[in-house]
Amino acid sequence: MSRPLTIALDVMGGDHAPHAVIKGASFALHKCEGLHFLLYGKESSITPLLDKYPDVKRCSTLHHTDSVVAAHDKPSQALRQGRNSSMRLAIDAVSNGQANAVVSSGNTGALMAMGKVVLRMLEGIYRPAIIAILPTMQKDVAFLDLGANVECDAETLFQFAIMGDAFARVVLRRDRPRIGLLNVGSEEMKGHEEVKAAHQLLKGEGTGIDYHGFVEGNDITTGVVDVVVTDGFTGNVALKTAEGAAKMITHYFKQAFGATLFSQIGYMFAKHQIDKVRKNLDPRRHNGAMLIGLNGILVKSHGSSDALGVSHAIQVAYTLSKYNINAQIQDEIRKSGVIGLTEESAGTL
Amino acid sequence: MSRPLTIALDVMGGDHAPHAVIKGASFALHKCEGLHFLLYGKESSITPLLDKYPDVKRCSTLHHTDSVVAAHDKPSQALRQGRNSSMRLAIDAVSNGQANAVVSSGNTGALMAMGKVVLRMLEGIYRPAIIAILPTMQKDVAFLDLGANVECDAETLFQFAIMGDAFARVVLRRDRPRIGLLNVGSEEMKGHEEVKAAHQLLKGEGTGIDYHGFVEGNDITTGVVDVVVTDGFTGNVALKTAEGAAKMITHYFKQAFGATLFSQIGYMFAKHQIDKVRKNLDPRRHNGAMLIGLNGILVKSHGSSDALGVSHAIQVAYTLSKYNINAQIQDEIRKSGVIGLTEESAGTL
Repeated sequence: MSRPLTIALDVMGGDHAPHAVIKGASFALHKCEGLHFLLYGKESSITPLLDKYPDVKRCSTLHHTDSVVAAHDKPSQALRQGRNSSMRLAIDAVSNGQANAVVSSGNTGALMAMGKVVLRMLEGIYRPAIIAILPTMQKDVAFLDLGANVECDAETLFQFAIMGDAFARVVLRRDRPRIGLLNVGSEEMKGHEEVKAAHQLLKGEGTGIDYHGFVEGNDITTGVVDVVVTDGFTGNVALKTAEGAAKMITHYFKQAFGATLFSQIGYMFAKHQIDKVRKNLDPRRHNGAMLIGLNGILVKSHGSSDALGVSHAIQVAYTLSKYNINAQIQDEIRKSGVIGLTEESAGTL
Repeated sequence: MSRPLTIALDVMGGDHAPHAVIKGASFALHKCEGLHFLLYGKESSITPLLDKYPDVKRCSTLHHTDSVVAAHDKPSQALRQGRNSSMRLAIDAVSNGQANAVVSSGNTGALMAMGKVVLRMLEGIYRPAIIAILPTMQKDVAFLDLGANVECDAETLFQFAIMGDAFARVVLRRDRPRIGLLNVGSEEMKGHEEVKAAHQLLKGEGTGIDYHGFVEGNDITTGVVDVVVTDGFTGNVALKTAEGAAKMITHYFKQAFGATLFSQIGYMFAKHQIDKVRKNLDPRRHNGAMLIGLNGILVKSHGSSDALGVSHAIQVAYTLSKYNINAQIQDEIRKSGVIGLTEESAGTL
């Protein structure tokens, strides 16, 4: 495939589709050079939007479909009945080489199931993981797995570390990312069997990655490492707990600023700086989680994403495509030596 | 044992011992009626402090010991060599009926190990759990297990729910606590086997508890339930992640307020309200985690606790003693019917 980079968009996915998707595509065009879109969705809904966003119209090809995966559809149902859905056709476009990456704000379960079935696993990788970028007190951190696998053995965690390393190089532009393994303490004796065994694998010679050791929950936001690795159960709970805690603190600050005339005046004086903090921590600016480990670039945008959120997810997909993340992962997996291309993993997955 | 309530204090435990412990005891005396202390630690360090806090001196009995469990001691080492340590003697006081509860800010691993060996399990309970109170956007929530067990089967999680229920009734004064089970989604098919099986047990008839169903990480701080139940690995990571996220947000707000003259003026105007938020969320006001499930009340105070933190931990121990938490747990376990007093659990633990 030649440049420009082509991104397939599930235009019907997400709470604010299709408008947020087309508007987000327009935002992304200003950030990414040489971008082309394949749009999948209802022509009658999309055409008027393209008239509104002629920049998107100019560099897009629209493929009509009436079928849409609903937010409440079960993954199995979406797989069976959604063969002509906007989500499925957009993933197909990556599978058959028409697009470099796919972005969808649709049903996460359906997207993961379709992604696995259509794109299949990257050679040598056992399981896909959800990886995303989070803000810290220093530089951003990459965090995986955010929920693709509720249980992970040591070798799977090891592979997550390799994939996280490649992701941090490509998306966070870190030369030599520091990798941390999430645990309940920093001592070797701490944790369950899987995490202790993964620690031994990561500590080994010649893995090609810069392993920091165990990190604890509070280390995620200190920025002490570039990548935090954990299983999908712990990762999902940790991510949502952090979001909840952040929401609670801002809720109380908001209440405080509104409480009295004095605090309202105080807010007016500090507003400019407070808005800067809000902007930095805005989850929309960290939107775009990759289902990493698949043989094709699939980026999940949050279901509630507005245009700004979608544009960030598109930028993630663009960067992953531009620097060919999957080639880097395979290269690192081969170099790591610890786990090669076993028959089971290469053949059957 | 008759009133007044007696609390054994490990006066040498914690970063700011012994001063923070004696001063904390003094604070607690103003909050709790009829309190008596058994103090364990070095007489030469404690006596001058008692002269400084005559209120504590008046209602305390001092037991001298030179032996102290250090912060870096391994649990096994503390068990073997710490038989005369201030921590161990304070726990012994509960075991032999001299005190209603023990409070220590010392080495967590050693405290847990000694607690289990000396106090043993409450009849019918399989495993102890660490339970603490966290702030939410509404009322406080009780959260367990915060790290006593890195892996838990379904029946253990079920028992945690029962113990959490009793804790919420006693400490949070909730009539009919709502219990949530932490998971990666609210649908029945979500999660690993243990959490799914625990869900089935909790959903059953006649458990005597008000089971809400699955909750996700972000629900911990919304206050949608009174008790959140999870295994010690997930709970420990979630707690520390929430602390980290809260720290990051306040760090950025602090930076914002200091950034410009305008924002500094803004802070001055809003200071009173902001301080109120800080005070509400102050972790010292939520200090005091119980090692629940033991045949005796053991409260862990944070290692870095100052006097305010220690006083809150003492208040938790006081409340747990006053309302006889362990009798309530055993009553509920018996009533729950689902898991009775099996031979293995009652006999061998």
